[in-house]
Amino acid sequence: MKFTRFLVDAVVHTGIIETDETIRGISGDIFGEWEYTGETFNQSEVKFLAPLEPNQIIGIGANYVSKVQDLPEQLPEIPVFFFKPVSSVIGPEDEIVIPNGTEQVKFESELAIVIGKEAKNVPESKVLDYVFGYTVGNDVTAPQFFHQDGHWTIGKSFDTFTPLGPIIETELDPFQVKVEARLNGVEKQNSATELMIIPIRKMISYLTNVMTLKPGDVILTGSPVGAELVGDEDVIECSIKEIGVLRNTFTKVKENATTR
Amino acid sequence: MKFTRFLVDAVVHTGIIETDETIRGISGDIFGEWEYTGETFNQSEVKFLAPLEPNQIIGIGANYVSKVQDLPEQLPEIPVFFFKPVSSVIGPEDEIVIPNGTEQVKFESELAIVIGKEAKNVPESKVLDYVFGYTVGNDVTAPQFFHQDGHWTIGKSFDTFTPLGPIIETELDPFQVKVEARLNGVEKQNSATELMIIPIRKMISYLTNVMTLKPGDVILTGSPVGAELVGDEDVIECSIKEIGVLRNTFTKVKENATTR
Repeated sequence: MKFTRFLVDAVVHTGIIETDETIRGISGDIFGEWEYTGETFNQSEVKFLAPLEPNQIIGIGANYVSKVQDLPEQLPEIPVFFFKPVSSVIGPEDEIVIPNGTEQVKFESELAIVIGKEAKNVPESKVLDYVFGYTVGNDVTAPQFFHQDGHWTIGKSFDTFTPLGPIIETELDPFQVKVEARLNGVEKQNSATELMIIPIRKMISYLTNVMTLKPGDVILTGSPVGAELVGDEDVIECSIKEIGVLRNTFTKVKENATTR
Repeated sequence: MKFTRFLVDAVVHTGIIETDETIRGISGDIFGEWEYTGETFNQSEVKFLAPLEPNQIIGIGANYVSKVQDLPEQLPEIPVFFFKPVSSVIGPEDEIVIPNGTEQVKFESELAIVIGKEAKNVPESKVLDYVFGYTVGNDVTAPQFFHQDGHWTIGKSFDTFTPLGPIIETELDPFQVKVEARLNGVEKQNSATELMIIPIRKMISYLTNVMTLKPGDVILTGSPVGAELVGDEDVIECSIKEIGVLRNTFTKVKENATTR
């Protein structure tokens, strides 16, 4: 199923994509009990939003090699994980705002995993039982704001820095997809998820041995080789064929609204 | 006012401390509309919980000097901020669980700021208008899980690693308090907040220039000199006199429940 959130006349709806044209409205908790409302919408008359309001967003750093032969024999003992604030989430077609004092930021197309059930100490073999579905994420990053001692928090936390969408696909095989990005129409990223250094099952099992994951937690599984710095008016399309295209335009802040 | 959350017969209540003995129950949103329920509870018959379920938790690293003369003339351009997962929150008297494969973790007593209103691009002079109140936080940390490249995420993210409480005090002057910690009854930390390198107004103004802060966001403002590694059965009391004592006991996991 393809879950979606969208606006109609300034009201937020949740729904399931039925055909290329129609969405059936639902109400309730997508991770629990929900039902069809009986309403049907035409996709052309709605504004798609991020397909969920995440509970938390956890990312993993530098997690792809360029070819299978480059996969390390020994995995790092402590993976590089980071959090992004939920305030950084935007939806398809929303603008990514380049922070004041900066000309360029980086796009990073990623497979985003949506957790559906509380998960603690989950063995690798059971990880997928706790996954609700999959969407596309763009882990936008301003490396100029990385701290010299290695902390990435500020460089990844600006408002608009986590586009998610267009929908959550619950019937995906995450081991059989390619993560792609096109910048102004030109392909920049295109890697199978088998090129992940820390694969999905290991990544999520590790996390659940540290913290209790909750429904609505989103795990950004890392970005393929090919991410680049981009600037004002550049158009980025992050995509996974089986999920859809997450398209956003970068924009410079036009006035100086901050006091920094 | 002193806001509190507590359990009575396995039901979660919210209330306001009225006297040393009594709590008046309230219902509604502490950041918006709330009212007294008419119920009164005796403090001796309730189990205090963390005084809120945070929306997000943001910490700042290495933010105290030991004496005023050591305050740097020039502040760092990019402060070290980090996120802690909301799943790490526990309340007063709850046990702090030392992770498998580790014998010791660090306590860090801190003034915790609770944001009450959505805050974006807030100048330093207006920061306190967005603060709902203050509680005590213990930013428990397992430095063994810090990544060699400087990422702290895993070392600060274990379940039970963010005790908060005992209450939220809304009428505090945060510039006139001391942040203290006693380990097994012996004083280990005791510093006035004037020893913060990045002071409260600057810290929160900076954050709001990056991300939109929301009601329920908790900012851990850094820990005074004196934090130490501790182990099984050690008892830590983090406190700010005007707020109260946040007391927790460290415990080793007794069985091997993980698959790492």
